[in-house]
Amino acid sequence: MSDIPGPAIILLSGGLDSATCLAIARNLGFGPLYTLAFDYGQRHRHELVAARELSRVMGAQEHRVITIDLRQFGKSALTDQIAVPKDRPPEDLSQQIPITYVPARNTIFLSYALAWAEVLDARTIFIGVNALDYSGYPDCRPVYIEAFEKLANLATRSGVETGEKWFHILAPLLHLTKAQIIARGVALGVNFAMTHSCYDPTSAGLACGRCDSCLLRKRGFDEANVADPTHYG
Amino acid sequence: MSDIPGPAIILLSGGLDSATCLAIARNLGFGPLYTLAFDYGQRHRHELVAARELSRVMGAQEHRVITIDLRQFGKSALTDQIAVPKDRPPEDLSQQIPITYVPARNTIFLSYALAWAEVLDARTIFIGVNALDYSGYPDCRPVYIEAFEKLANLATRSGVETGEKWFHILAPLLHLTKAQIIARGVALGVNFAMTHSCYDPTSAGLACGRCDSCLLRKRGFDEANVADPTHYG
Repeated sequence: MSDIPGPAIILLSGGLDSATCLAIARNLGFGPLYTLAFDYGQRHRHELVAARELSRVMGAQEHRVITIDLRQFGKSALTDQIAVPKDRPPEDLSQQIPITYVPARNTIFLSYALAWAEVLDARTIFIGVNALDYSGYPDCRPVYIEAFEKLANLATRSGVETGEKWFHILAPLLHLTKAQIIARGVALGVNFAMTHSCYDPTSAGLACGRCDSCLLRKRGFDEANVADPTHYG
Repeated sequence: MSDIPGPAIILLSGGLDSATCLAIARNLGFGPLYTLAFDYGQRHRHELVAARELSRVMGAQEHRVITIDLRQFGKSALTDQIAVPKDRPPEDLSQQIPITYVPARNTIFLSYALAWAEVLDARTIFIGVNALDYSGYPDCRPVYIEAFEKLANLATRSGVETGEKWFHILAPLLHLTKAQIIARGVALGVNFAMTHSCYDPTSAGLACGRCDSCLLRKRGFDEANVADPTHYG
């Protein structure tokens, strides 16, 4: 990988994980950095504001927001008229695929990132998925990331014409706990007060403190012995 | 595959290939059929009208058009301010990746199809790609289709929870010449006069007769000994 740094695309949701992922990309020497967010009709659209601010503060070259309509497919508590689960016990959080799973979401996100990467001649796409505290999403597993990387190199002009592993999908948080991600982010100077994780914020953008995402985040700050800067509603 | 038919999603661009693909899906006993088209800012938007009409005439249950903005990435003659190549000699058409290649297009299309398939509990996605007369697109090759099928089963709740090869990506035109596709379509009653292939039609929607897509289509009708019903401008 020593010859790889250069431009990179970072999927930046505005949450704690993707903000840390952006800091890691910068720290590894990648640049210029291009951040990509998606407006997919999510309940927690405050994260889009957070993503734009984080991108600017952390020195990205450009931030794009792509509007995609996943609501028309429905079937997820994040986009549909289904209640976001609250107050689930910790042992439940990583046990099964929750209702907040959005069908094929990361595949759609990575596909757009791949299109942009090819246009920019960027070889690297960062995605802040996490297989430990991942709340059971199938598209947050190592085997999924590897399959997408393989696809990326088969799908594109750059992948085919260079005849080598041109694109790299990097998921540096894959094997970290939430506490380890927070510790890494703190070490790299991420301002977590600017990040937004809640699936079901108040209209003022305050975190509910009770959805899976809030519970995992709270526990992470606790375990990392870092003061939780989240504004709860 | 004997236990597979049931609902299927068909990527329907409105061209000759996808119309034949829809006819093949129906003939194999799949149903209900759901057709999916994309408005991605293509020059040849007349194909979207063709897709809707074909879906209706061929008895699909539902037709959806998803708007995606590939123009903001550019770098393709189909979406950018780059001239569509004309009058290329036949030997050039399959030799290299042409400027009409749209970065990661089929990957984005299939990702949306996968999301819809998961919501509908459909196991099968049909895509009318073709590896022979494919004009050199990397995402029209067998190895690409296999990689996406593998990804689909890793990416989704259905793929993970069933623990088997749940999703099938079928590309029945993959190894057919354009002439063979036309012969198959004629046998299945496809009305090719309703299909639209031209990359650079006149404002009235007439085919230019000179872009790669028109040239491959013309040659196909010629080789299949079928009268070409295309309206040229």
